[in-house]
Amino acid sequence: MSPRRTIAVLNGPNLNLLGTREPHLYGTATLADVEDLCRRTADTLGFDVDFRQTNHEGTLVDSVHELRCSASGFVINAAAYTHTSVALHDALATVAAPVVEVHLTNVHAREEFRHRSFVAPVATAVIAGCGPAGYEFAVRHLAALATHTDTKESSR
Amino acid sequence: MSPRRTIAVLNGPNLNLLGTREPHLYGTATLADVEDLCRRTADTLGFDVDFRQTNHEGTLVDSVHELRCSASGFVINAAAYTHTSVALHDALATVAAPVVEVHLTNVHAREEFRHRSFVAPVATAVIAGCGPAGYEFAVRHLAALATHTDTKESSR
Amino acid sequence: MSPRRTIAVLNGPNLNLLGTREPHLYGTATLADVEDLCRRTADTLGFDVDFRQTNHEGTLVDSVHELRCSASGFVINAAAYTHTSVALHDALATVAAPVVEVHLTNVHAREEFRHRSFVAPVATAVIAGCGPAGYEFAVRHLAALATHTDTKESSR
Amino acid sequence: MSPRRTIAVLNGPNLNLLGTREPHLYGTATLADVEDLCRRTADTLGFDVDFRQTNHEGTLVDSVHELRCSASGFVINAAAYTHTSVALHDALATVAAPVVEVHLTNVHAREEFRHRSFVAPVATAVIAGCGPAGYEFAVRHLAALATHTDTKESSR
Amino acid sequence: MSPRRTIAVLNGPNLNLLGTREPHLYGTATLADVEDLCRRTADTLGFDVDFRQTNHEGTLVDSVHELRCSASGFVINAAAYTHTSVALHDALATVAAPVVEVHLTNVHAREEFRHRSFVAPVATAVIAGCGPAGYEFAVRHLAALATHTDTKESSR
Amino acid sequence: MSPRRTIAVLNGPNLNLLGTREPHLYGTATLADVEDLCRRTADTLGFDVDFRQTNHEGTLVDSVHELRCSASGFVINAAAYTHTSVALHDALATVAAPVVEVHLTNVHAREEFRHRSFVAPVATAVIAGCGPAGYEFAVRHLAALATHTDTKESSR
Amino acid sequence: MSPRRTIAVLNGPNLNLLGTREPHLYGTATLADVEDLCRRTADTLGFDVDFRQTNHEGTLVDSVHELRCSASGFVINAAAYTHTSVALHDALATVAAPVVEVHLTNVHAREEFRHRSFVAPVATAVIAGCGPAGYEFAVRHLAALATHTDTKESSR
Amino acid sequence: MSPRRTIAVLNGPNLNLLGTREPHLYGTATLADVEDLCRRTADTLGFDVDFRQTNHEGTLVDSVHELRCSASGFVINAAAYTHTSVALHDALATVAAPVVEVHLTNVHAREEFRHRSFVAPVATAVIAGCGPAGYEFAVRHLAALATHTDTKESSR
Amino acid sequence: MSPRRTIAVLNGPNLNLLGTREPHLYGTATLADVEDLCRRTADTLGFDVDFRQTNHEGTLVDSVHELRCSASGFVINAAAYTHTSVALHDALATVAAPVVEVHLTNVHAREEFRHRSFVAPVATAVIAGCGPAGYEFAVRHLAALATHTDTKESSR
Amino acid sequence: MSPRRTIAVLNGPNLNLLGTREPHLYGTATLADVEDLCRRTADTLGFDVDFRQTNHEGTLVDSVHELRCSASGFVINAAAYTHTSVALHDALATVAAPVVEVHLTNVHAREEFRHRSFVAPVATAVIAGCGPAGYEFAVRHLAALATHTDTKESSR
Amino acid sequence: MSPRRTIAVLNGPNLNLLGTREPHLYGTATLADVEDLCRRTADTLGFDVDFRQTNHEGTLVDSVHELRCSASGFVINAAAYTHTSVALHDALATVAAPVVEVHLTNVHAREEFRHRSFVAPVATAVIAGCGPAGYEFAVRHLAALATHTDTKESSR
Amino acid sequence: MSPRRTIAVLNGPNLNLLGTREPHLYGTATLADVEDLCRRTADTLGFDVDFRQTNHEGTLVDSVHELRCSASGFVINAAAYTHTSVALHDALATVAAPVVEVHLTNVHAREEFRHRSFVAPVATAVIAGCGPAGYEFAVRHLAALATHTDTKESSR
Repeated sequence: MSPRRTIAVLNGPNLNLLGTREPHLYGTATLADVEDLCRRTADTLGFDVDFRQTNHEGTLVDSVHELRCSASGFVINAAAYTHTSVALHDALATVAAPVVEVHLTNVHAREEFRHRSFVAPVATAVIAGCGPAGYEFAVRHLAALATHTDTKESSR
Repeated sequence: MSPRRTIAVLNGPNLNLLGTREPHLYGTATLADVEDLCRRTADTLGFDVDFRQTNHEGTLVDSVHELRCSASGFVINAAAYTHTSVALHDALATVAAPVVEVHLTNVHAREEFRHRSFVAPVATAVIAGCGPAGYEFAVRHLAALATHTDTKESSR
Repeated sequence: MSPRRTIAVLNGPNLNLLGTREPHLYGTATLADVEDLCRRTADTLGFDVDFRQTNHEGTLVDSVHELRCSASGFVINAAAYTHTSVALHDALATVAAPVVEVHLTNVHAREEFRHRSFVAPVATAVIAGCGPAGYEFAVRHLAALATHTDTKESSR
Repeated sequence: MSPRRTIAVLNGPNLNLLGTREPHLYGTATLADVEDLCRRTADTLGFDVDFRQTNHEGTLVDSVHELRCSASGFVINAAAYTHTSVALHDALATVAAPVVEVHLTNVHAREEFRHRSFVAPVATAVIAGCGPAGYEFAVRHLAALATHTDTKESSR
Repeated sequence: MSPRRTIAVLNGPNLNLLGTREPHLYGTATLADVEDLCRRTADTLGFDVDFRQTNHEGTLVDSVHELRCSASGFVINAAAYTHTSVALHDALATVAAPVVEVHLTNVHAREEFRHRSFVAPVATAVIAGCGPAGYEFAVRHLAALATHTDTKESSR
Repeated sequence: MSPRRTIAVLNGPNLNLLGTREPHLYGTATLADVEDLCRRTADTLGFDVDFRQTNHEGTLVDSVHELRCSASGFVINAAAYTHTSVALHDALATVAAPVVEVHLTNVHAREEFRHRSFVAPVATAVIAGCGPAGYEFAVRHLAALATHTDTKESSR
Repeated sequence: MSPRRTIAVLNGPNLNLLGTREPHLYGTATLADVEDLCRRTADTLGFDVDFRQTNHEGTLVDSVHELRCSASGFVINAAAYTHTSVALHDALATVAAPVVEVHLTNVHAREEFRHRSFVAPVATAVIAGCGPAGYEFAVRHLAALATHTDTKESSR
Repeated sequence: MSPRRTIAVLNGPNLNLLGTREPHLYGTATLADVEDLCRRTADTLGFDVDFRQTNHEGTLVDSVHELRCSASGFVINAAAYTHTSVALHDALATVAAPVVEVHLTNVHAREEFRHRSFVAPVATAVIAGCGPAGYEFAVRHLAALATHTDTKESSR
Repeated sequence: MSPRRTIAVLNGPNLNLLGTREPHLYGTATLADVEDLCRRTADTLGFDVDFRQTNHEGTLVDSVHELRCSASGFVINAAAYTHTSVALHDALATVAAPVVEVHLTNVHAREEFRHRSFVAPVATAVIAGCGPAGYEFAVRHLAALATHTDTKESSR
Repeated sequence: MSPRRTIAVLNGPNLNLLGTREPHLYGTATLADVEDLCRRTADTLGFDVDFRQTNHEGTLVDSVHELRCSASGFVINAAAYTHTSVALHDALATVAAPVVEVHLTNVHAREEFRHRSFVAPVATAVIAGCGPAGYEFAVRHLAALATHTDTKESSR
Repeated sequence: MSPRRTIAVLNGPNLNLLGTREPHLYGTATLADVEDLCRRTADTLGFDVDFRQTNHEGTLVDSVHELRCSASGFVINAAAYTHTSVALHDALATVAAPVVEVHLTNVHAREEFRHRSFVAPVATAVIAGCGPAGYEFAVRHLAALATHTDTKESSR
Repeated sequence: MSPRRTIAVLNGPNLNLLGTREPHLYGTATLADVEDLCRRTADTLGFDVDFRQTNHEGTLVDSVHELRCSASGFVINAAAYTHTSVALHDALATVAAPVVEVHLTNVHAREEFRHRSFVAPVATAVIAGCGPAGYEFAVRHLAALATHTDTKESSR
C-alpha cells in the first residue's frame, strides 16, 4: 500500500528562481524551502512527497503520466503553463486522484492573462496567494482526502 | 491588545442553507459545523472569531465597516455577491488587515459567471474547493500573518 | 397536506409602484389588483397564495428560503434583480418545486441589459409581456403541475 | 366580422415530429394534440384557429402574409427559425394584430444560440417552457386582447 | 447575342408587400411599380429584364443558378436574406457577371443586424436608401458595364 | 408649495466612511461636511435638503420611492451601486424631477467596471471628480432648474 | 432488415453546380461523379445509397425527417446551411443513427463565418478537405459502424 | 431662389490623387473628371455644383457648416474620415438637406475597419462601388428630391 | 503672477453652431453667450479667460501646447474629438494644471460611441449635461483649485 | 525514390495513454494498434510509415523539420498542441507535401477551446471523430495524392 | 538622380514638445536633436533628409502626397495618429518607396489603445522603444534598401 | 568585468530553417549569416555574443535563466513563442538587463494572432521587419545602453 501514499508536488517554469526572482511578489523562500515544508508536513501525516520542477511543458506532462496511477494526490503549481497549457489540462484529466492547483501569489489580482486557468477545470481545489503556506494547505488537504478514502475502503 | 486578536468570518447569501442545499456540491456539514471548526482552529492559535452570515449585500458591507479597524484579518465567503458586488469590493478596499476569499466549491470550474470575483482584487489570498477545510486554512493563514506582524512590531 | 398547497408569488423592486409608474409600459392595474387576480385564480384551483413584494435583494432571497420547502410552486417577477442577482439564482436552485419567471412587459424587446436573466436557468418556464394575465397563467401552470404530481403520488 | 375572429397558430421546423422527438425535452403530446388544445380553447372563447406547420422559412413568411390582415392574433412557435430568421422578423413587423411567441421548452435555459430571438422584438409577449399549455395561454391572451379591442371599438 | 442582354432583378422576402408594408419606411410604390421602372430603364438602354420575387431562400439560390450564365448583370435586393444567407453568398460567388446589391432604405442606419451583408463581399456595388431609384441606378450601371465589355470584345 | 422645494441628496455604500477611507482618493472631508455644504448651498437658494446615506441597494430604492413625488430634484451619488443596480435605474426612471449623478472622484479615469453607469441613462447630468464641490454644483443646478420651472409655471 | 441498410447522402445548396463552380476550390468532379463514387463504395460494402441535393433548407429538414428512422447512417454536406441552420441541427438531433459531416474543401482554413458549424455538435465525425474522397471515407465509416452494430446485435 | 439650387460635393483625404493612386482599385479617372461629370449631370437638371476636396477633417467640417443652409443636398465621399470622424457625423447631423454618402469602391467588401461609417447614420442614402458613376447617381437623386420638394412647396 | 491667472476654455468641432444646431439637444444659448458666462464668472473670481473654438483637431492640440505652461486650468469641451482624439489625450497629458472635461449634454445617455472619452483619463473632473452652467461650474472649480494652490505656495 | 515514399504520422501529447485514458471518449485501441493500422494500410499502398509520439511541443517541431523534405505527406494528430501551438503552425507552413489533421474524437463538438486549430490553416484536410479509422483514411488520402503526383510527373 | 536620394522623416502630434514633455517616458533629447541625428546619419550614407513635424492629421497626409514620388524612403513617427488615422494609412498605401514606422517608446508595452497601428500594415518595418536611435536605425535601413535597389537597377 | 560584456541572442522555433523556409517572407540569409552579423557588429563595439537557437519553449526559458545575471543585454527573436509563451514572459521579467524583441518580418502586418506579444511588455524595444539588420540594430542599441551604464557607473 505504501506506493499509493505519495503526494506528487509538481512545479512549473521559473519556480527554480524562487527567492531570487521578484521577491516583492514571490517572497524570499527558495524552492528548496518549499520542498522542505512539503516534506515535513507530509511526513507528519504519513505520506511521502515526490517533488519536481521543470521549465518544460512536455516534462510536466511526462511527470503527470509517470505518477498518475501511483500518487495519492497532486499539488500542482504550473506557473505560466497554468494559463496556456491544454496539454497539461488533458494530462490531469486522466488522473483519478485529487489535484490541488497552487499559486504563491493571488493570480486573480494580477494581469488579465493570469485569470484563465487550464488546470482549474480538472482540479479539486485552488489555493492562491498564501505563499509557501499554500503548498502546506494543499498537502494537508490531499492527505485528509486520501486518509478518508483509505478509511472508507478498509472499513468495507 | 485582545480586541485586535479577532478574526472576522463573513458569509454571504444562501450559506445559511449549508448541509441541506445541493449536498452533492456543498457537502453535508452545516454552517454551525463550519463556525465550530473556525472557532476551534482560532482558539488553538490564540484568536477569537466573529462569525456572521447574511443574505443582504448591504449587511455584508455594514459588517466590514463595523469590523474593519478591530479585526486582525477577514475570512470572506461572499458566495453570490463575490461575482456581482462592487459595494463589497469598495468596502474591503478600506480594510488594512489581510483578507482571504474562501469558497466551498472550486468556483473556477463552474459557470462562467462565477469566474469573475470582485473580492479577489482586494484579497490577499483565494482558497476554493477545499470545503470547510478552506475556512480552517484561511484562519491559520490570517493568524500566522497577524502573529508575524505582532512579532515584528513588538521587536522594534 | 394543506401546507404544500400554497403557491408563492414573489415580486421584486419597484413593483410596489405598479399602476402609477410608467403606465404606457406597465398598465394601470396596481399590485393589489395583481394579488387579487392571483388569489382568485388559485382559489378556484384549490390553492392558497403567499404574495410578497420587496425592493431588497436579500429579502427576496430570505423569502425563497422561508418558502422553499412548503410552496407547491413559485411565481417570481424579480424585476430588476432578474438581470443582476446571482444570489437569487442560487436561492432558487435550492428549490425542488417548479418556478415560473414572470414579467409584465416583453423584456426581450427592451434594453440589452434586460435580455440576460439569472432566474431563467433555474426556472421551468418564462412568461413575459402578458401583463397581469401572465401571473394568472403562471398560477394555472403551477397548479396543474402540482395537481399532476399529487395524482401520480397518490396513485402509487 | 367573423373573418377577423380567427387566431393563427404557426409552427416552424421539426415540430411535426412532436411526441416522437426527444420526449425528455418536448414531452409526449403530438402536434395534433396541440392543435386540438388550441381549437378547444379558442372555440370556448368564440374564435376559430388556423393551425399550420412547415419546415420551410419561406412558407412561414408566406403564411404570415396570407393571414396578416385577417387574423385577430398570431401564436407563433417558429422553433429554430426563431433564432435565425430576419425574414420572419420582417414579415411579422407588417402585422398589426398582436403576436405571441411560444416555445414548448424554456429556451432561455438551453444553448446560447437559442437565447437570441428575431421574433421577440416584434412580439407582444413570449411564453416559454409551459409545454402545450403555453399555446393555450397564448390563445387565451390573444382572445382577450381581441375581445377587449372589439368592445372598445363597438362602444365608440 | 440577345439572350446575354438580359438584366436579372431578384427580390427577396416581404418585398411582395411593397407599398402596403410600413410605408413610412418603404414608401408607397408597389413592386409592380419598381418592375415597371426597371423595364423602362432597361428598354431605353437596349436590355431586357428578368424580374422575380420570392420569400424562399432556396428559390433565390435557384434563380441565381438559372440565370448565372445568361444574365449580363444582377440587381439583387435580397432583403432579410442579405443578412443571413451564406447560401446566397455562395451562389453569387459562382456568377461571372457583375452584381449590384440594392436596398430601398439606408440599411446602414437601421438595426445592428442589418449592418452585416453576405451579398456585399460578392457584389460589385451597393446602393441603399434611394428607394425605387436605386433599382434604376443599378440597371443603368450594369447596362453601362455590359456595353463597355461588349465594345471591348467586339473591337478586338 | 414648500414641500416641492426640497432637494433630495442620496448617498450609496461606503460613503459613510468618507474622510477616513482612502483619503488620497476621496479627500479628508467627511460626509457630515458634505451634508453641511449641501444645506448651506440650498439654504441660500431657498431650498431644503433631505440628505441620506445607506449601504443597502433596497434602501436606496425605497428612498427614491418615498421622495419621488415631493422632491424638486435628486442629487445621487450611488457609489458602487451606480455600476451594478438596475433596480436603482428603474426607480429613478419613475421620477419626473431632474436627477444629477455625482461622484467625488473622476470615475471615468478609474477601473473599467466603473465606466458603466446605470444611473446615467436616467439622469439629467453627471458631475465627477470635483470632490464635495460636485454636490454644491449639483444642488445649484437643480435649484436653478426648479426655479426656472416655477417661474414658467407661475407666469402662465 | 434491408431497409435499414441504406446510407443517406444529403447535399446542400450550390452543390448541384459541382464541377463548374470555382474548380480551383472544388475540383472538376461533378455531383453525379460523387454520387457514383458513393454508390460504388456502398455497394461493395453491402449498402444502398439514397443520394439527394437541394438548395432549400426546409427540404434538407424534410429529407432528414423522411430518412431518420430508415437510414443506417447520414453523410451530410450541408454546404452553406452548415453555418446558419439551427433547423437542420434540430432535425439531425432527432436521428439515432450516426451522422458524418463532410465538406469538399477544408472549411477550417477559409472565411471566419465558415468556422462555425451547426451540424458538428450533432455529428459523430467531420471530414473536410478530402474532396470527393471524403464522401467515400464517410460511407466506409458509417458502413463499418452499422456492421459493427449488426454484429453485436445478431450475436446476442 | 437660385442659391438653394446648388448641390455640394465634398471629397475627403487622398481623393486628390485619384487616377494615379492604386488604379486597379480606383480606376484611371481623375478628380477633375469626376467634377466634370458632376457639373454636366447637375447642369442638365438645373443645378450648380460646389465641388471641394481636402485632406483635413476640420476643413470638411468647415465646408459642411458653410454650405449647410444654402445647398439643396450633399454628396459626400469622406474617404478615410468616413470611418473615423465623429466630428463630421455631428456636422452633417445639423444639415436639413439630404445627404448621399458615396464611395468609388465597394467598401463593404474591403478591410473590416472600412465597414463602419460615421456618415451613414446621418445620410439618406449610400452608394458604393459604382466608381465615378456613383457621383452621377447621387447628384441625380438629390436633384430629384430637391425638385420634388420644390414642387410640393410651390403647389401649396 | 498675472499670466498664470488665466483659465483656458477650449471648444471643439461644431460648437460654433451652438444655439442654431439641434436646439432640443443643445439649447438656444450661443457660444458667445457661453463665453460671456465664463468671463463674468472668472472675472468675479479674479481670473482672465482665454476662450477658443476650432473645428480642427490639430488646432486644439496647438492651443493646448500654447497655453499649457501659462494657464491655471483648462476647461475643455472637445465635442466629437473627445471620443476619437488620442492626439488631444497626449497633448493634455503634458499639462500640469488641472483639466475639467465639459459637455453640454449628458453624453453618457447618448450613442454608444460617445461613452468613450480620450480626455477623461487625463482630466481631473468631468461635467456633462448641465448646459452652459457646466462651464460656469468648471471655471469655479479651477479657480478654487488654483487659489488653493496659490495659498499653499505663498504660505510656505 | 523510396525515401520520398514515406508517410509521416506524428502524434502529440497524451496520445501515449491511448486505450487507458478516458475510454468512453477515446476508445480501447492503443497507440500501438493505431500504428499497426497505419503501417498495414500504407504497406498495401506501397508506402512506409514513420510513426512518432511526443508530449513535447518542441519535439513535434523538430520532427516536422527532420521529415519535411523526405515525407510524401503528414498525418498529424497534434492533440492539445493543435489548439495552442503557433510554433507547429509555422513548422508545417514550411512543408510542401500535403498535411492531414486528424483527431480521434469530434473536437468540434467538445469544449470551446478545442474549436480553434493552428494546424487547420496549413493543412489540406481535417478528419475528426472517426477514431483510429481517421488515421487510415488520412493515410489513404495522402497515398492517393502522392501517387497522383508521381503519375503526373512520370508522364511528363 | 539627387532628388530621389532624399529620405523623408515625418513627425506627428506633440513631438514638437520632445525633451520637455514627460521626460521619464520620452527622454531629454529635443526634436532638433533628433533632426540633427537623422541628418548626420543620412549625410554619411549620401542622402538628404526632409524633416517635418505637425500636429495636424491633414498636414501629415499632405506631406506624404508631396514627397511620395521623390523620397527614397519614409521614416514616420505618426505619434497619436498612428492609432487613429485611416487617412494616413491610405496616403502611405500610395507610396512605392519603403516606409519605416518609428516610436520613441515601446508602444506595445503601453495603453491598449496604442497597440493598434494603422501605419504598420503599410510599413516595411516597425522600430519602437529605441529612443532617438530608432530614427538612426530607420534612416540606415532605408538608405541600405535604396542603395541596394540603385545597385540592382544600374547593373541591369 | 568581461563576463558582463556579453550580449545574448536567443532565437526561437523554426529559425534554424532560415534561408530555406519561405524565402519570399524571410529572405535568403541563413541563421549562420545572422549569427555572423551579430558577432561582427558586437566585436566592433567590444562585446561578445552568446548566440542560441531552439525549437523548445522550455529551453528558451532555461537559456534566459542561465544568462540572466551575466548578459549585458538580450536580443530575443522568440518567433512563434512570442505570441503564446507566458513562461518566457515570466523568465524575461526576472532579467535586469535590457531586452530587445526582434522579428525578421513586420509581424504587425501579418495574421491577427501575431499581433499579440508576451515579450513586448517586458522588453525595452521592439524591432520588426528589418530582416537580419534588425539584429544588428538591436546589438548596437544594447551595446550603447551597456556602455552608457558602464560610463555612468565608472564615473561615480
